[in-house]
Amino acid sequence: MIGGGQLARMMVPPAIELGIDIRVLAETDGSSAAIAATSVGDYTDAATVLSFARDVEVITFDHEHVPQSVLAALVDAGHAVRPGPAALAVAQNKILMRERLSAMGAPVPDWAVVHDSAALGAFLAEHDGRAVVKTPRGGYDGKGVRMVGSAGDADDWLAGAGAEGLLVEALVPFRRELAQLVARRPSGEVRAWPLVQTVQRDGVCAEVVAPAPRSGALPEQARSLAERIATELEVTGVLAVELFETADGRLLVNELAMRPHNTGHWTIDGAVTSQFEQHLRAVLDLPLGDPSPTAPWSVMVNVLGGPANGAMPSRYPAALAADAGVKVHSYGKQSRPGRKVGHVTATGDDLDDTAARARAAAGFFQA
Amino acid sequence: MIGGGQLARMMVPPAIELGIDIRVLAETDGSSAAIAATSVGDYTDAATVLSFARDVEVITFDHEHVPQSVLAALVDAGHAVRPGPAALAVAQNKILMRERLSAMGAPVPDWAVVHDSAALGAFLAEHDGRAVVKTPRGGYDGKGVRMVGSAGDADDWLAGAGAEGLLVEALVPFRRELAQLVARRPSGEVRAWPLVQTVQRDGVCAEVVAPAPRSGALPEQARSLAERIATELEVTGVLAVELFETADGRLLVNELAMRPHNTGHWTIDGAVTSQFEQHLRAVLDLPLGDPSPTAPWSVMVNVLGGPANGAMPSRYPAALAADAGVKVHSYGKQSRPGRKVGHVTATGDDLDDTAARARAAAGFFQA
Repeated sequence: MIGGGQLARMMVPPAIELGIDIRVLAETDGSSAAIAATSVGDYTDAATVLSFARDVEVITFDHEHVPQSVLAALVDAGHAVRPGPAALAVAQNKILMRERLSAMGAPVPDWAVVHDSAALGAFLAEHDGRAVVKTPRGGYDGKGVRMVGSAGDADDWLAGAGAEGLLVEALVPFRRELAQLVARRPSGEVRAWPLVQTVQRDGVCAEVVAPAPRSGALPEQARSLAERIATELEVTGVLAVELFETADGRLLVNELAMRPHNTGHWTIDGAVTSQFEQHLRAVLDLPLGDPSPTAPWSVMVNVLGGPANGAMPSRYPAALAADAGVKVHSYGKQSRPGRKVGHVTATGDDLDDTAARARAAAGFFQA
Repeated sequence: MIGGGQLARMMVPPAIELGIDIRVLAETDGSSAAIAATSVGDYTDAATVLSFARDVEVITFDHEHVPQSVLAALVDAGHAVRPGPAALAVAQNKILMRERLSAMGAPVPDWAVVHDSAALGAFLAEHDGRAVVKTPRGGYDGKGVRMVGSAGDADDWLAGAGAEGLLVEALVPFRRELAQLVARRPSGEVRAWPLVQTVQRDGVCAEVVAPAPRSGALPEQARSLAERIATELEVTGVLAVELFETADGRLLVNELAMRPHNTGHWTIDGAVTSQFEQHLRAVLDLPLGDPSPTAPWSVMVNVLGGPANGAMPSRYPAALAADAGVKVHSYGKQSRPGRKVGHVTATGDDLDDTAARARAAAGFFQA
């Protein structure tokens, strides 16, 4: 696994359970996935990555930022890279993502590529004067995304965008955000978890409810859409499809991620097969596990920032005493404003009660 | 954690989830718990153990074999040792265990300490001519246990027994074997998992059904008994009480273990809080988790021996394809006749179906 963040960390428990020898190329010492970090180095350096890859069977990723040149070097050297470079390219570049989704007829917001303020102004004029501008590469958790209301609002980004330009999208009046996660293995098998509802704050996932309540036909539509995207893009491993439910009840694809995703953390404690176990099975081309939920409701709440002094475990005496059933996950990180340092998941028979428990538990670790 | 076997290995996932830095003193390189083995050395050597203990907050164990002299050295040096030496002494010596259980009025089979064949003969004469002889120390998985039918049947063991002698116990005509697991933390809180039924083959745990079916008042009796033993012996961490259900429906205590136990492996996939997470919480004196089952039935089947060639993962393509819902655990060991190399757990609404699934899944890894 390239990348030593919390996604790599959370891959370690199912690797231990299945007896799979997991190795991590981490960015730094003391990474979140340090327990499995057999190498520390720069994932943008082909020699470093090739050296790490020498004695592993499959390469997979904690993030989408490994350059295509490094991915190509891995493939050229005969390594199994999953997901593969062609699929990852779509996750790495939001313009390419929109092109591919539009080409396959997937529902997306109106979009365009703009190279100057005149083009941005023209797009705004056609879309009630407001839009979202995105840098094609490198954005995450709200970074690289800006709301714009006039033609000059992205001049600084346009100056640095080069020939690629920027992506501009219509603002979608949405009822809520949803996410559909599926996993696909190279032989073609695809399995889908239930559609979930997500609440974002400041561009960061704050809370996930599984399954998405009051959804009518949306789960079937979302599942079919995600399975089609996974198959057409030949994704291997977990694919997360972030969705808008529009005011008139349609689904639009917001973003794609080709790895375990924050909106799937509830599966560790709330599904027969977690997204982390499933990702391992998928990239190893093993038969996929049952993604069924184990409880009527699961609610996951992120711990953002963490306790003012120290790290999450300092609050365990109070938090664990307050609720013996909530599952607490700490990523081994020191607190820092806005940082994802952990999450909590509650499961139960009643949605309101389950959500209240998860929020209360997360509250012990904040401020 | 002292000891690098599969119990230490299975402690690693909950340690990662809770953000607890777990360190293992393993017996050898390449142990089952190698991913967390920060030291390799001899647990009977006080200097080795003291050196390992220097920068940990709490010492706990994967087995009961650390000598009392080493435990005393740890306590003398100011380390928190959980369970403590006095409790562990009872798990280390079966004669002491019988003495303590009898003194607290816990139901046990008729027993005696014998130092010669005449005494063994006298015990046999009072117990229908058959009995079980046990070495007080070092036995596990059927080792150090022998059925005897005549006074001379234990002469070889008596010759080496010294002043301590051997334990002899009446053969109990039992209906079935059961196990009650509880966890206790230093502040006194005790939590109990449901009573389970165990099937032993050749003295080794083969299968566990949770909860024990058709049990009437036994769960309440077993729970009360185990809580009392944990409290009176001041056990910290998990206590496993192995029980006989006699032909006339009474409970008798067979053995005690003061650590996570094979009869609790089902809790990883079938309870809100696994025995491994609970042991960590208990020895760290954190509030204990909810031990409730997450499904009506859980059935755990050990994988003994393992595939004829290689290790468990070589059978994943067939085993995982046959049942997408069964949870497979491999201990990272090579196959060897009789060796515990892993286990599988199935959960479900119907006992017969759940048991059939677990046995079928285990079957893929044997022969």
